[in-house]
Amino acid sequence: MELLERAHELEAQGFDVLHMEVGEPDFPVAAPIIEAAKVALQRGLTQYTSATGLPELRSAVADYYNKLGVKVRAEQVVITSGASGGLMLLAAALLNPGDLLQVTDPGYPCNDVFAEAVGASVVRVPVSAQTAFQPTLKDLQARWSEKVRGVLLASPANPTGTMIARSAMEELCAGLPDDAFLIVDEIYQGLVGEQPEYRTALSVSSRPIILQSFSKYFGMTGWRLGWLVLPDELVDGVRRLAQNLFICPPTVSQYAALAAFSPGAMEEHERRRRIFRERTLRLAEGLNALGLTVPALPDGAFYLYSDVSAAGLPASAFSRRLLEEFHIAATPGLDFGEYQNERFVRFACTVDLGVIDEVLSRLKAAVSRFQAS
Amino acid sequence: MELLERAHELEAQGFDVLHMEVGEPDFPVAAPIIEAAKVALQRGLTQYTSATGLPELRSAVADYYNKLGVKVRAEQVVITSGASGGLMLLAAALLNPGDLLQVTDPGYPCNDVFAEAVGASVVRVPVSAQTAFQPTLKDLQARWSEKVRGVLLASPANPTGTMIARSAMEELCAGLPDDAFLIVDEIYQGLVGEQPEYRTALSVSSRPIILQSFSKYFGMTGWRLGWLVLPDELVDGVRRLAQNLFICPPTVSQYAALAAFSPGAMEEHERRRRIFRERTLRLAEGLNALGLTVPALPDGAFYLYSDVSAAGLPASAFSRRLLEEFHIAATPGLDFGEYQNERFVRFACTVDLGVIDEVLSRLKAAVSRFQAS
Repeated sequence: MELLERAHELEAQGFDVLHMEVGEPDFPVAAPIIEAAKVALQRGLTQYTSATGLPELRSAVADYYNKLGVKVRAEQVVITSGASGGLMLLAAALLNPGDLLQVTDPGYPCNDVFAEAVGASVVRVPVSAQTAFQPTLKDLQARWSEKVRGVLLASPANPTGTMIARSAMEELCAGLPDDAFLIVDEIYQGLVGEQPEYRTALSVSSRPIILQSFSKYFGMTGWRLGWLVLPDELVDGVRRLAQNLFICPPTVSQYAALAAFSPGAMEEHERRRRIFRERTLRLAEGLNALGLTVPALPDGAFYLYSDVSAAGLPASAFSRRLLEEFHIAATPGLDFGEYQNERFVRFACTVDLGVIDEVLSRLKAAVSRFQAS
Repeated sequence: MELLERAHELEAQGFDVLHMEVGEPDFPVAAPIIEAAKVALQRGLTQYTSATGLPELRSAVADYYNKLGVKVRAEQVVITSGASGGLMLLAAALLNPGDLLQVTDPGYPCNDVFAEAVGASVVRVPVSAQTAFQPTLKDLQARWSEKVRGVLLASPANPTGTMIARSAMEELCAGLPDDAFLIVDEIYQGLVGEQPEYRTALSVSSRPIILQSFSKYFGMTGWRLGWLVLPDELVDGVRRLAQNLFICPPTVSQYAALAAFSPGAMEEHERRRRIFRERTLRLAEGLNALGLTVPALPDGAFYLYSDVSAAGLPASAFSRRLLEEFHIAATPGLDFGEYQNERFVRFACTVDLGVIDEVLSRLKAAVSRFQAS
C-alpha cells in the first residue's frame, strides 16, 4: 500500500509511472454482463436474494463445471460476496480459536487475516522454485501438528502463477489426514495457458473445497461476487453462516453474472485469457534475458515472480529504487511472506504489450545501474 | 426460516398468505438511484474502489450527518458491504476469542453469530416493555463482567422499533466504563415518526460507534451497502481489516448510493417514511383493539412487537396456527431471544394499508377461535 501511495505521488508530480503492481484485469467488463446488469436494474431486481445466491446462478456455476467434465450439483454451489466473502465463510465454518491453517509462503497475504479474524492462525509452509512454489505432501506433513485443521492452497497461485501439478494434487488429496480440510483457491482458474494439466482441482479429486471468484477470468472485480463448491456435509452450515453474516451477495451483480457464462461473454473471456498469456510469456522471456530470472514459468494468472538477486540488491530495495528512479511499480516479495522474500519481486501483466516492452527497456537500464552501484 | 418455507408451501397450494414477516421495504428503489447505477455501468465504473469506499460517498455520508446538525468528517466514515459487512469489521476489530459482547434480548438474532465468528460470545441483557425494550445503564451494569468488551444496541431496534431515550443514551455514554465500546445500530435511522427525540445517537454524544445501512431508509437492500462512523483511533485498524477481508464494497452500488442523497431521492425516502409510519400506527391501533397489545409503541422502523398472550397461546403456537389456519406469516419471539419469547410476535409493516386491514380482520377471527379452543 505504501508503494501504491508513493506511485500516486510520483504520478501527481508528472512522472509516467508504469503500474506492474495491479492485481486487477485491465479490460472493461464484457458487454453482455453490463447489459444483463442494466436489464436487472430496469426490472427492479434489486431485492435480497436467497443467502446462497440465485438458484439459476448456482445452476449456471454447476453447468460451468459440468462442461469441464466435472460433476457438480447446484446444491453444492454457494454464491458469495466475492471470494473474500467465501473465504470468510470457510474460516468461520472450519476454524475455531487456537486452530491452525496451513498456507504457502509465498502466498496471498490476506489469508492470514481471515484466519486471525476467527481467532485461528496460519502456519506458513515455505515453497521454492524447486517445486514450482507449490508444496508437496511431505512439505505439509513436515509442518503438521495437532492443531492444524486443514490447508489452503492456490492453483494458479498468487504471486507465482503456478499450479499444483496433477500428481501432487492427487498425492495431497489421498495423503492428507481424513479429518483435515483442503481448500483450493481457484480464483485464477480459467486464466491459464493452452494445455493446463487440469482445468479444476475437482477434475483430479472430489475432495477439495473450491474457492472461486468472478473477478479474474470473468473480469468482474468491483461486483464483489464469487462462489464456493462444497462437499454436501458443509452446505447447511455454510448456508446458515451466510444468512447471518452476509444476508445475501449483491443482487444486481448476481443477475449480471448469469450473462458471464453466455457464449458471447465466454468468447470475450477466452480472448482475454490468450492476451494475458501472451503478455506473461513476453515479460517472462524479457526478464529471463535480463537475468531477472523467472525460475518457475507460471501456468496461469497474470503474475511473474522474478528473482532479482542478480541486480545485486535485496528485493525491497530493488522495488523501491525501481519506482523512484525508473518509475515502475512492482510488488516486493515481502508482501507475500517471509521465505526468500528479499529475492523476489512480483510483476502483474495487467498492462498491454507496449507497456511491457517499455518496462523491459527501463528494467535493462535499472539492472545496469543497480549492478554498477 | 421454517416459517418462511411453510408460507411458500401454502402459497404453492393456492392460499393467499399475508406476509407480515418480511424485514425488507416493499417499495422499488428510488428512480435517481437506479439511474445513477445505469450511468456507472455505462461508464464502465465497475473496478475495485478504495477499501473504505469512494471518497465522494464518504463525503456524502458526512454531509448527511452535518445536515442533521452533527459534525462528522469524511475520514471517520467507512463504506461497508452492507451493515453486515460493517458489523463483521467491528467484531474483528473489537473482539478477541473469549471476549463478551452485551446485546439486548430481544434483539437482532444475527448479532450472536458475528460475535461467535470471531470466537467471542454475547451476554443477553433482558429488556421489557417497562423500559420500551431498551436497557438502562443499570441493566448493563448488572450483567457486566471482566470479559465484557462493549455493548451493541439498536435504535430504532428490531424487533420492537423502539429508540433508546435521549436521557438513557446520555446516561449510557457517560456511565459505561471508559475502555468499553458502545456500538449503536442505526440501521433503521431515518425511518421514524414526526418528532423523534434525536435523529442520530451522534447528536447525543460523540461516543457511539455507528453501524448504518443503505437498506432500510434508502431502500437499497440487495445492493449490500452500509457504513460505519468511527472514532478517529479506530479508522486505521478498520481500514486494514476492510482491505484484507472485503477488498472493497460493491462498486456500482456505491455510485448508485451517491444519488440516494439527492433531493429527488430524499423526497421519495421521506414519502416512504411517512407511509411506513402510517401503516405502523394503523396496525398498532388495530392490534391494541384486539387485545394483542403493543406495549411499547415503536418510535421507528416498521415493526410491531405484539403481546399475544391474551389469545391464550404461547407465541410460537400462535404464530404457527396463524399461518396454518389464517394464512398470516408473522415472526414468533423465539427468533429474537429467550426473554419473554413466548409472549411476543413481530409484525413487519412491509405491506400496504389494504393488507394491514385484511390482517386485522383475519386476526380478529383468529383471536376468537384461539380463545375458544
